[in-house]
Amino acid sequence: MATAQGVGAIAVIRLSGSKAIETTQRLFQAKNKTIDLNLVPSHSIHLGYLKDGDKILDEVLVSIFKNPHSYTGEDVVEISCHGSIYIQQAIVQLFIEKGMRHAEAGEFTLRAFLNAKMDLSQTEAVADLINSQSEAAKNIAIKQLRGGFSNDLKKLREKLIHFASLIELELDFSEEDVEFADRLELIKLVEESLDYISELIASFKLGNAIKNGINTTIVGRPNAGKSTLLNALLNEERAIVTEIAGTTRDTLEEVLNIDGIQFRFIDTAGLRETTDTIEKLGVKRALEKVRLSNIYIYLFDIAALSLAEVKADLKELPTDIPRIIIANKTDLASKTKLQDFKDLDRDLLFISAKNDKHTNTLKDALFSKLNLNLLATTPTIVSNARHYEALRKTKAALLQVKKGLKNKISGDLLAIDLRQALYYLGSITGEISTDDLLGNIFSRFCIGK
Amino acid sequence: MATAQGVGAIAVIRLSGSKAIETTQRLFQAKNKTIDLNLVPSHSIHLGYLKDGDKILDEVLVSIFKNPHSYTGEDVVEISCHGSIYIQQAIVQLFIEKGMRHAEAGEFTLRAFLNAKMDLSQTEAVADLINSQSEAAKNIAIKQLRGGFSNDLKKLREKLIHFASLIELELDFSEEDVEFADRLELIKLVEESLDYISELIASFKLGNAIKNGINTTIVGRPNAGKSTLLNALLNEERAIVTEIAGTTRDTLEEVLNIDGIQFRFIDTAGLRETTDTIEKLGVKRALEKVRLSNIYIYLFDIAALSLAEVKADLKELPTDIPRIIIANKTDLASKTKLQDFKDLDRDLLFISAKNDKHTNTLKDALFSKLNLNLLATTPTIVSNARHYEALRKTKAALLQVKKGLKNKISGDLLAIDLRQALYYLGSITGEISTDDLLGNIFSRFCIGK
Repeated sequence: MATAQGVGAIAVIRLSGSKAIETTQRLFQAKNKTIDLNLVPSHSIHLGYLKDGDKILDEVLVSIFKNPHSYTGEDVVEISCHGSIYIQQAIVQLFIEKGMRHAEAGEFTLRAFLNAKMDLSQTEAVADLINSQSEAAKNIAIKQLRGGFSNDLKKLREKLIHFASLIELELDFSEEDVEFADRLELIKLVEESLDYISELIASFKLGNAIKNGINTTIVGRPNAGKSTLLNALLNEERAIVTEIAGTTRDTLEEVLNIDGIQFRFIDTAGLRETTDTIEKLGVKRALEKVRLSNIYIYLFDIAALSLAEVKADLKELPTDIPRIIIANKTDLASKTKLQDFKDLDRDLLFISAKNDKHTNTLKDALFSKLNLNLLATTPTIVSNARHYEALRKTKAALLQVKKGLKNKISGDLLAIDLRQALYYLGSITGEISTDDLLGNIFSRFCIGK
Repeated sequence: MATAQGVGAIAVIRLSGSKAIETTQRLFQAKNKTIDLNLVPSHSIHLGYLKDGDKILDEVLVSIFKNPHSYTGEDVVEISCHGSIYIQQAIVQLFIEKGMRHAEAGEFTLRAFLNAKMDLSQTEAVADLINSQSEAAKNIAIKQLRGGFSNDLKKLREKLIHFASLIELELDFSEEDVEFADRLELIKLVEESLDYISELIASFKLGNAIKNGINTTIVGRPNAGKSTLLNALLNEERAIVTEIAGTTRDTLEEVLNIDGIQFRFIDTAGLRETTDTIEKLGVKRALEKVRLSNIYIYLFDIAALSLAEVKADLKELPTDIPRIIIANKTDLASKTKLQDFKDLDRDLLFISAKNDKHTNTLKDALFSKLNLNLLATTPTIVSNARHYEALRKTKAALLQVKKGLKNKISGDLLAIDLRQALYYLGSITGEISTDDLLGNIFSRFCIGK
C-alpha cells in the first residue's frame, strides 16, 4: 500500500521487481479491449478489471513503469483501486497468493538506492519529505532530494581521493623519496574542505530545529502576560488567561507556523518562588524547558516590576541560549518607568500583548535572533543527525590531516587520516555503506515507500 | 485529495475540468527535459517538479487523462506527490490560488454521471464499492457498477415506453376508437415486469443485510454458553466468559467475516427474569435486539434445562424472524436427555461450544437459513434503499396498470399509471432525475470521488 491507511476515493498499491508486470498481466483484463501489459510503453495507464479467476475484484487503473525508468529502477506497477479497506486488502492478498510479498518499510527506496537511482542522502530526503510539516523543512528536504548537497560532497570527496591516491602512489615508490602530491596544494584543499564542512556542521543546529520545530519557551513571573502573549501569537484562546497569578501551572505547548517555519511555543508556569507545591513543580519545569529550547522569551510586567527585580530574574536564566527580553503592559506603565528600562538590553522590546499589538515586532525578533533569514541565502542546510555526525567525524579526520601536513609527517600516516575522512564523507551519500547502516535508515520509512 | 487522509508514501490529488491540464502545465516542469502536458497523449505519466514561481513544491508524477477518456469524461490530471500532509495541503492550496476549487463530496462521480460516463445506479455502486467491507458486499457493488442491473431495467423501461407511446397515440385518435397497443400483449408484459420487479424487491432484504452486515443475535438463559459460542466463532477471547450466571450484562457486538459475508454477532444478556436492575435492562435489550435482527440464535444448556423450560423460552421469542435453535453442552448431558429433545425442532443443532466443535455446522445453518447460497446464482441483488423504494413504487404503479387492463379502463387512465411506473423506474438509473435527488446521492460520497 503506497497511500495512507483508511478509506479514500482511491488507494494506490505499488509493485516492484522483475515479475511485477507479468504477474499483473495474469490478473488484469482491460476494459473493452485486449492489452498485454508486457508490451505497453513505459509510463502508460490502462483501465480494466483485476480478476481472481472469473471473479472480478475491482475496476482499476494500472500504471506501468519499465525498468530502468521507475522509482526503484526495476519494473514497477501502480494499481489505483477503489479506496475500500476491504478491496485494498483483497488486492494485496491476491498478489501475495500469486507469489509477490509485502514490501518492508522503506524497501522501495532501498531498491532505488541499490539500483543507483538515488544516493543515500537523497533517500533520507524522501523520508524527510514525507514527514515534513512546514515549508522550510520541506524545502531543505527537496534541496537534498535534488542532489545539490550530494554533488558538493562528491566533488569534495573526488578531490580528496585524487590526493589520497597520489599519496598512496608515493608509498609504492617510498624508496625513491618522491612527492607526487603537492603538499601546499593539499593544505589549501584541506583548509577549503574544513571551511565548507564547518559551515555545514554549523547549519545543523538550525536545520535540526527547522525539521523538528523551533522550541521557543516563554518564561516570566506569574501575571506577566505569558498566556496573553501566546494567545496573541496564536490568535486563538487556547491557553487559559485569568487575573489570578500563577494560573498556568503545567506547561502548555502550541505549534505555530510563522512564514513557513514551525515554532513550538511553550508557555510555562511563573518563575516566582511559591509555597504551592503544584506550582513549584511548574517553576522547576519552566527552567528545564528553557535549557532545552532553541530560543526563549523572558517576559515581564513593566508596570509591576522594578529594574532590580527584572535583573534578578535574568540572573537566574541561561545566557548561552538565544533570548528575547520583552517588557509587557507598556500601556499601564508611566513614561519615567519606561525610561528606567531603556538600558537593560540592547534588543529589549516594549509591547502590550493584551492589545494584540507588536506581535509582528516579536516575530521579526525571533527570525533575527535565530538567523532564519540565512535560510534563503544558505545553499545547503544539514538537518539529518546522521549527516551531522559523519561531518563532525570527517572534520576531526581532516584536522588530523592538516596537523600532519604542518608537522610534515610521513605519507603513510597522512594516507590513513585521509582514508578516514573519505570513509565518513562517503557514508553520507552511501558510497560507503554497511548493512547495519542501511537497515537503520530504511527501517524508519513507512511501508510502501 | 483522492487518497485517504493522513501520511502515506504517496498521496494522489485529482483535478477535473477543461482547465485541469493547462493549469498543471503552468506549474509543472518535467525532469531533465521539456514537456508540454497539453500535447502529451492521454493515459500517460510524467515525472517532474511542481513549482510555485521559482519555488519547488515537490517532485511528482503527473498522469494525464484526456476528455472523454477519463473518469469524469472531462480532462483529468492526477498528481502523485510525496505523502506528507503539509505537501498535500500546499499543492491543493497552490491549485486553488491558480483558479481551481475544492471538489464537493462526490463531485467527480456526479460529473461522470452528467457526462453520461455512468448512470445513476452505477454512481451509487462506486460509493458502495468504496465503503464495501466484505467480499459479498463488494461483489454486489461490482455487478451494479458493471451495469447489468441498469441494462435490465433499461430494457424493461424501453418496452414499457413503447407501449405507453402506443397508448398515448391512441389518445390522439380517441374519436376513432382504435387500439394500437395490443392489450393482451400489454398484460403479458406487465405481468412479466411485475415478476421481475418483485424478485428484485425480494432480494433487497438479503442485499441490504449483506451491505450492512447480517445482524445475528445470540439469546439464551444465563450460563447457556452464549459468550463461549461467540468466542468459538471468533476464535478469540473478546467476550468475558465466567462461571457466574448473568455475566454478560450489556450487549456485545462482534463482526465476523464468514466465507466473504459480514456477520454482526450480538451477544446479549440472559433471558431469565432477575431481581438485579442492571441485568433486567439487559434482558429487555436482548429482546429488542432480536426484533432488529436478520436472524437469531437461541442457545440453551441441555444438561441444565428441561424440555418444558426450553419450550417456555421459545414461546417468548419471535417466530417471524429466521432462527437457529442450539442445544449446547451436549458433553454434559445424558443420552436420555438428548433423546428428549429430538422432536423439539426440525433443524435443532446439538453442539458443545466449549470444545470448539461444531462451529462449522452452525456456519452452514446460518447460510442455509438465510438463503445465502442464492448469492452465487441470483443475477441481481438490490442493496440500495433508494432503488428498493423506487422498485416498490414502480410495482404499485404496475399493479394499477394491471388492474386497469383487467377492468378495461380507458387509455388515458392507463397512460397515467404507465407514466408513473416509468417515472419511478427511470429514477433508478437517472434517466429521470431532479437536483434534490442528485444532491442527496452525491452528498454521501467522500470528497475526491
